[in-house]
Amino acid sequence: MDEFGVIETFFADRANRRDDVAVGIGDDGAVVVPPCGHHLVVTADLLVADRHFPAGTDPYAVGVKTMAVNLSDLAAMGAEPAWATLTLSLPEVDERWLDGFSRGLFDQARDFGVQLIGGDTVKGPLAVGLQLLGWVPAGEALLRRGAAAGDRIFVTGTLGDAGLGLRCRQGRVSLPDADEDYARRRLDRPTARVAVGMALRGIAKAAIDLSDGLAADLGHVLAASGVGAHVELARLPLSPTYRRHFALAGGWDTVVGNGDDYELCFTVSPRDCAAVTEARLGCVVTEIGEITSGAGLVMTDEAGQIFVPAAAGFEHFRDDG
Amino acid sequence: MDEFGVIETFFADRANRRDDVAVGIGDDGAVVVPPCGHHLVVTADLLVADRHFPAGTDPYAVGVKTMAVNLSDLAAMGAEPAWATLTLSLPEVDERWLDGFSRGLFDQARDFGVQLIGGDTVKGPLAVGLQLLGWVPAGEALLRRGAAAGDRIFVTGTLGDAGLGLRCRQGRVSLPDADEDYARRRLDRPTARVAVGMALRGIAKAAIDLSDGLAADLGHVLAASGVGAHVELARLPLSPTYRRHFALAGGWDTVVGNGDDYELCFTVSPRDCAAVTEARLGCVVTEIGEITSGAGLVMTDEAGQIFVPAAAGFEHFRDDG
Repeated sequence: MDEFGVIETFFADRANRRDDVAVGIGDDGAVVVPPCGHHLVVTADLLVADRHFPAGTDPYAVGVKTMAVNLSDLAAMGAEPAWATLTLSLPEVDERWLDGFSRGLFDQARDFGVQLIGGDTVKGPLAVGLQLLGWVPAGEALLRRGAAAGDRIFVTGTLGDAGLGLRCRQGRVSLPDADEDYARRRLDRPTARVAVGMALRGIAKAAIDLSDGLAADLGHVLAASGVGAHVELARLPLSPTYRRHFALAGGWDTVVGNGDDYELCFTVSPRDCAAVTEARLGCVVTEIGEITSGAGLVMTDEAGQIFVPAAAGFEHFRDDG
Repeated sequence: MDEFGVIETFFADRANRRDDVAVGIGDDGAVVVPPCGHHLVVTADLLVADRHFPAGTDPYAVGVKTMAVNLSDLAAMGAEPAWATLTLSLPEVDERWLDGFSRGLFDQARDFGVQLIGGDTVKGPLAVGLQLLGWVPAGEALLRRGAAAGDRIFVTGTLGDAGLGLRCRQGRVSLPDADEDYARRRLDRPTARVAVGMALRGIAKAAIDLSDGLAADLGHVLAASGVGAHVELARLPLSPTYRRHFALAGGWDTVVGNGDDYELCFTVSPRDCAAVTEARLGCVVTEIGEITSGAGLVMTDEAGQIFVPAAAGFEHFRDDG
């Protein structure tokens, strides 16, 4: 099977056709029709085998995660996803791998109304690049730089589960089947908080998605906004599974230092906090601390002592990343 | 140097700031302001070391070519380039490589008014993915599928030079210095025909860029349009350098079968051919044949005999590609 056959067989995406795609896969470029009065939000992520996922990972999960990490970036901007391009490097035409990968990619894409409109498929080391395009009403994108002293800090969902899942996959811990399934699923199939991000337009002052861990990612918000923060560990939302295996999972270090949870972290002015409800956002949301006028992130433990995490988040050129 | 340092040092692109970029590099996504009444054109290409370029290639040339091949895709759509995202996989932080690559990328980007707005930089096998976004007035994109019987077929510039350059680089032929410089430059630093593509809006019925070779790429136009074509080899535009080394270069096989020239091939209704001039397009342009109602591409040589090329164009999963 050649490149054209691969695209035709696995990536034609017949199940999800958007009305605003004038020309999809098959020309020199795709042509799409943007809505007037909106701004375009653009993200791009690259996942490399044996760096971001073991080469033997279930290809369906690779497909899901490739789409999910980009959806999560759009969610953090408050954007509505629309179109994607895929740059795929494959050592050979492995039809079993392509079938699983494309099903994962498209299952996730369909859930969020995304159409694949183009890309490039070449022979090379296994690596998956995805670019995602979405929309926000003009001026309503959520940015990292809007946090101000006094803002309350929130996170969606629960933290640390993906870190626990990683330890399971690495064989560093062994859990009862149901718990291990839960943790690994949270690692392999994160839920992008797209609806939450859209609901936070006009409410959140700053937002980011937790791909590198709370300490690192909240740190990006603080640096971009020129503020500090105080976070209380005791308020961080943990799943029942994580609580059950807290020490094995790596305790607070994993909760704040491990990436891949793909929850949203955002700040809200005190006067708008009444709008931050599970009912309105469609997702569990927890207040974890406050933006301060100081510099940097201060975390305190249950005893009020300052907590210094052992790990500082995923960093792509570090060898243990 | 970590990922953030790499981006800050090499990819911040301070020299080219577009007014329509609300948020560039440094947030979860970029935010740009699309012009109303236009359609968005999206391309994505992936270049893998030792597949699309030898790992030892001058990184400046890799940067230029990465941008140029995507610009060429936009040119073939008649689009005006605007914004790019880069997904870069690097074995290590090689500052010399990054300096050369980013200079090449940005020199080319500046020439065409493109701003880099985001991307992802990770550790992995050397591979460069670029996504490029541009604009056409609504409904004016040039597509592959518009060719009709009777249309005249044109190409820009000269063909075969990149193929000759490839033979030089492979050590298969040796030429006088000036000729070898010319051919290798045509291979490593193609000129995207962006202005030509924009000038062809409303004139060309179908267009494509020559990345895989005339026979393969014109074949894509014919397949998409449901037509055939007759091309006369004697009319194909060759450079003085190519003519001088015609046999060493591989003769007509290289001219029609080798990719990487990144010229445009387009069809025009006979009534509009008067508009296809070098003065109007800013580039040498040559009529090479005619669209027919038959199926497939027929090429004839100087004696009127049917010519069957030995090579059928670059194909990404073929081992000699």
